[in-house]
Amino acid sequence: MSKIKTGIVGGTGYTGVELLRLLALHPNIALEVITSRGEAGTAVADIFPNLRGHVDLVFTAPDDAKLEECDVVFFATPNGIAMQHAQALLDAGVRVIDLAADFRITDVAEWEQWYGMTHASPNLIEEAVYGLPEINREAIKSARLLANPGCYPTATQLGFLPLIENNLIETTGLVADCKSGVSGAGRSASVGILMSEVNESVKAYAVPGHRHLPEIRQGLQQAASKKVGLTFVPHLMPMTRGIHSTLYGRLLKTDVDLQRLYEQRYADEPFVDVLAAGSHPETRTVRGVNTCRIAVHRPQDDDTVVVLSVIDNLVKGAAGQAVQNLNIMFGLDETTGLQGIGLLP
Amino acid sequence: MSKIKTGIVGGTGYTGVELLRLLALHPNIALEVITSRGEAGTAVADIFPNLRGHVDLVFTAPDDAKLEECDVVFFATPNGIAMQHAQALLDAGVRVIDLAADFRITDVAEWEQWYGMTHASPNLIEEAVYGLPEINREAIKSARLLANPGCYPTATQLGFLPLIENNLIETTGLVADCKSGVSGAGRSASVGILMSEVNESVKAYAVPGHRHLPEIRQGLQQAASKKVGLTFVPHLMPMTRGIHSTLYGRLLKTDVDLQRLYEQRYADEPFVDVLAAGSHPETRTVRGVNTCRIAVHRPQDDDTVVVLSVIDNLVKGAAGQAVQNLNIMFGLDETTGLQGIGLLP
Amino acid sequence: MSKIKTGIVGGTGYTGVELLRLLALHPNIALEVITSRGEAGTAVADIFPNLRGHVDLVFTAPDDAKLEECDVVFFATPNGIAMQHAQALLDAGVRVIDLAADFRITDVAEWEQWYGMTHASPNLIEEAVYGLPEINREAIKSARLLANPGCYPTATQLGFLPLIENNLIETTGLVADCKSGVSGAGRSASVGILMSEVNESVKAYAVPGHRHLPEIRQGLQQAASKKVGLTFVPHLMPMTRGIHSTLYGRLLKTDVDLQRLYEQRYADEPFVDVLAAGSHPETRTVRGVNTCRIAVHRPQDDDTVVVLSVIDNLVKGAAGQAVQNLNIMFGLDETTGLQGIGLLP
Amino acid sequence: MSKIKTGIVGGTGYTGVELLRLLALHPNIALEVITSRGEAGTAVADIFPNLRGHVDLVFTAPDDAKLEECDVVFFATPNGIAMQHAQALLDAGVRVIDLAADFRITDVAEWEQWYGMTHASPNLIEEAVYGLPEINREAIKSARLLANPGCYPTATQLGFLPLIENNLIETTGLVADCKSGVSGAGRSASVGILMSEVNESVKAYAVPGHRHLPEIRQGLQQAASKKVGLTFVPHLMPMTRGIHSTLYGRLLKTDVDLQRLYEQRYADEPFVDVLAAGSHPETRTVRGVNTCRIAVHRPQDDDTVVVLSVIDNLVKGAAGQAVQNLNIMFGLDETTGLQGIGLLP
Repeated sequence: MSKIKTGIVGGTGYTGVELLRLLALHPNIALEVITSRGEAGTAVADIFPNLRGHVDLVFTAPDDAKLEECDVVFFATPNGIAMQHAQALLDAGVRVIDLAADFRITDVAEWEQWYGMTHASPNLIEEAVYGLPEINREAIKSARLLANPGCYPTATQLGFLPLIENNLIETTGLVADCKSGVSGAGRSASVGILMSEVNESVKAYAVPGHRHLPEIRQGLQQAASKKVGLTFVPHLMPMTRGIHSTLYGRLLKTDVDLQRLYEQRYADEPFVDVLAAGSHPETRTVRGVNTCRIAVHRPQDDDTVVVLSVIDNLVKGAAGQAVQNLNIMFGLDETTGLQGIGLLP
Repeated sequence: MSKIKTGIVGGTGYTGVELLRLLALHPNIALEVITSRGEAGTAVADIFPNLRGHVDLVFTAPDDAKLEECDVVFFATPNGIAMQHAQALLDAGVRVIDLAADFRITDVAEWEQWYGMTHASPNLIEEAVYGLPEINREAIKSARLLANPGCYPTATQLGFLPLIENNLIETTGLVADCKSGVSGAGRSASVGILMSEVNESVKAYAVPGHRHLPEIRQGLQQAASKKVGLTFVPHLMPMTRGIHSTLYGRLLKTDVDLQRLYEQRYADEPFVDVLAAGSHPETRTVRGVNTCRIAVHRPQDDDTVVVLSVIDNLVKGAAGQAVQNLNIMFGLDETTGLQGIGLLP
Repeated sequence: MSKIKTGIVGGTGYTGVELLRLLALHPNIALEVITSRGEAGTAVADIFPNLRGHVDLVFTAPDDAKLEECDVVFFATPNGIAMQHAQALLDAGVRVIDLAADFRITDVAEWEQWYGMTHASPNLIEEAVYGLPEINREAIKSARLLANPGCYPTATQLGFLPLIENNLIETTGLVADCKSGVSGAGRSASVGILMSEVNESVKAYAVPGHRHLPEIRQGLQQAASKKVGLTFVPHLMPMTRGIHSTLYGRLLKTDVDLQRLYEQRYADEPFVDVLAAGSHPETRTVRGVNTCRIAVHRPQDDDTVVVLSVIDNLVKGAAGQAVQNLNIMFGLDETTGLQGIGLLP
Repeated sequence: MSKIKTGIVGGTGYTGVELLRLLALHPNIALEVITSRGEAGTAVADIFPNLRGHVDLVFTAPDDAKLEECDVVFFATPNGIAMQHAQALLDAGVRVIDLAADFRITDVAEWEQWYGMTHASPNLIEEAVYGLPEINREAIKSARLLANPGCYPTATQLGFLPLIENNLIETTGLVADCKSGVSGAGRSASVGILMSEVNESVKAYAVPGHRHLPEIRQGLQQAASKKVGLTFVPHLMPMTRGIHSTLYGRLLKTDVDLQRLYEQRYADEPFVDVLAAGSHPETRTVRGVNTCRIAVHRPQDDDTVVVLSVIDNLVKGAAGQAVQNLNIMFGLDETTGLQGIGLLP
């Protein structure tokens, strides 16, 4: 087959460099254009020297004509950008994958409340497909507009789904205690994410409310077919990459083989790896790869279930999942370009 | 007053160097002897060069006679050592502060099960005083044998106590999701705590059961005067010092001013600092000091309460609390030698 | 004696918080005022929560009258601020300690070239005393205007001085290969010092020329009484605090007992600790303290001497040395308020 | 072509897991056997979970017969093992690549002195080819026994070679100030490389003499065709991967275009990337890849040249270079299996 003509809008952040890394090595991708208002004229490899010799693109000023010649355009932009450009691209026959949050929440009012802006394309929300392949693979195949999930939502939903789908836990009082590396906070100049501020320290943040809460809740509610009560507490870790979701729920029955349940649920999933009973996944084992590793525990045989779910926030939590979705959308083997091995140590 | 003649057994680990740092600067302490079978003959400052010019002691072989001349002896040893020597020291009129776990659990059978050994002095357990000053100050004053609390138990109990003491939360389904720096794992040669293993990664560990679970549960049950159901999940963080306990409980009533409750509970406590409503304590703000910083949240005004509690695991979680207990035991101002300021950044 | 009325201009950076930490615990200091245009009205402890309970000052708008009532004013400001205010303060009888670089270089033209601005008080430069106590103690005692040395210059000069003062090395071809934690780059929002940029990486920077080069060279030339040829290469380390200067020179004679030379040179210096022959100082042994630890080597008994010199860049390299200078200026014991022990681990 | 039957001896360390990562993705390799006395019976992926789904080998007890059926055997073992087994394998027609130091030094006496043991196969040393492709490519093609270079020697030789080969610098007084991540120290239980010991600190080590000194000196002397005087000071960095060599030499002439010299020297080298003039390479840009990035500076147009050379110690400094050598030895495209992109951030 001929290569898929691919454009990127944005791409100066960490999600961008990771997307470029993956696409540059993808055998079916032709990187055609990357646009950035702020960096127009700069070679991509000058900002991200790891790409030297692999990506010779230069950032260009935003240019709809160039993007409209692509087969697919990724938005690796802040929230609120993709919603301004998606309609024109779709009209031009271009498929759109948004790595930001513009099309993740189906309830416009809720989206506008959490994201603090008016949605520019509310009419597209219904069409958009939420790109978590483990629950939405069929819809993704034909998606024109794909909403790539957030990092916390990916790790957390994959961890809770087998329990929720099978009505095994109470759907109130769920707890998602999540730990993230600082790359999730992006690559913008901000005192709070300086090395000297983050290093050798741990803190929770956004306990009163984080934007990923409605996204996770929406996914769990769809799986449960009812309201779900969830407390989500993100924490900032003194490291760059990785998310560890520690999930707590109250079992409705305790005579279920949870290990088998998880293994069966994900038996055919190329990017979900259920560890042996008693295991503790480490985020470093998925560094740079699209795998989600999960372990399920029932401490002291009590009625609280504890699920440990780890991903690389920039891969399965962002760029890798976007490539996985592209593979599905374009009929490729789902693992194309994603067969790397985690970098350990 | 004359100085308190002080001995240390052990002291070659991180709890030991921190205890030495604090005692060396304590105005009422005379460091008389420090014993170590393995390091006998080595100058303390050769192992811990930060002590150069401040501590000129040399490790000596274990020698009961020397220790029996002291007013107080600290055990900064592995579990199972203090219980072999405490009786003789007490008989000699020496007060004993054990930084390990030998005397923390009042139920001998439970202790023996979790610690995997037979208790050598079960008769002393009843006399031993659990050294969490915020609940036990009076008993500590006259204690001859003090069981210094564990690190996770300190952060977790201080976080839960105001809620439990006032019957404000369900006592089942409690969750303590705790994050610790790797110094808590000690200073012994072990692959699992190598820099290359721990750095840039997060993992949970001991989910099926950790020795601090019975200690925390015992403390909460004493405060609640009934059985408590607790899930405790410790996590290893890629940093050296600090514990962050994130605590979850279900409120029995939601019309309580939690902020005021915490502020009043700890108003007179010199080492518990309740942050303003909406705050997120960072472990780095207590680096090197004996303070526990706490914030209490009720996200989305729902019925789940979230408490964030941070300490330095080597100070309020070990050596600092031991010095605080010594101050109480010897009638000194409780903050003597503990007035330092956290090292930030 | 009555307390020294002390003001601080600036203080919102890492040098500032460290200065506040030291002054808050200094028995002879009364902190009267701290000014910041940007943070006026904010409590100091709201920006630096480690200071909660120790510093209750609120940043005020710059106010010369308040500062002029002080006995001493510290400038913990960017370069170019102290030179605008020093004269008025001196005229009011206030002694001034500048932690920035305004008065470090005696050659105005050279200063203006390296710092890229016109000097506002060139007439004060001659009066200013360079505050490296190990070479300038007498002049510091009576200084009205003190230029506190830079971090790299402190570690590097202390390492080279015994060799230079005794004409033991060639004064051309000197190499100072220096490694610094990122706190030296300050607390301003900048992509280059984000955790995700700095963590798990090492790089040299400013190899073509760094502002500390002329400062180091000036000090070495004064000691040598002739021109000195020095190559200075700073490196950014993935850590917060600490400087390690590795110094290389060619010995003019090899029959000198270098170990004894260093020990004698610094025998009476309270803050320079010469390690035993064969040692390798670690930056962590001086974390939070005003000590410079030095080891001197002659590998393979060849004619290249290697000096290893470590400091905490925020203490002996900034705030701690400023307090040491204050102690000297006000006739206090030089170690007052600086007797802490390094935080290890 | 049929796949190359490949065996590994050892492989339980960091060099081993990295070699397995690269070989598992190499299109021409069939991994046949991996032996470890200590881990016989353990699945490789149980020790290194990043390999789950990619490597299903189980460690077997050392078994010469199995190894002798291979086309090539890698030794990812401590020093002193390969020299005991190489002859038998060569006799069986197996090519051998030793990632340890057994065959790197041509002078047996010097080797025995630095490595503290008697060489078991001195007769093989002459046949062994030193596997730095940038100087030895022709000899590598036909090598039966390949000595894979050390990490510091790779970064340092590649940095110095253009200057030495062209007689542009004095060959006495050379300085190699090198900084390494801790993975270079291996994966054995040792207090000195614990997270709590290494994190947030920098130190030099082995200043009196490090085993890589004779290896570097030998390479430089071969290039210079004369004796070379080198001071080599390694430093331990608080990070896992990466080496930064900062190299200093005195230029014999200053009218040479050093930038052009470096660019031309390495124009055809697939794994040496000379950065633009004025650049500062970061170790993170080569994380996980076989590239050496180099920049050359002449600060202040003086006669000292400064070369900055970075590699990933586990890739170009070990496993990656071994695969590069394998590619050359077996007539494959030299970049086969090594086309990855550095993981940044």
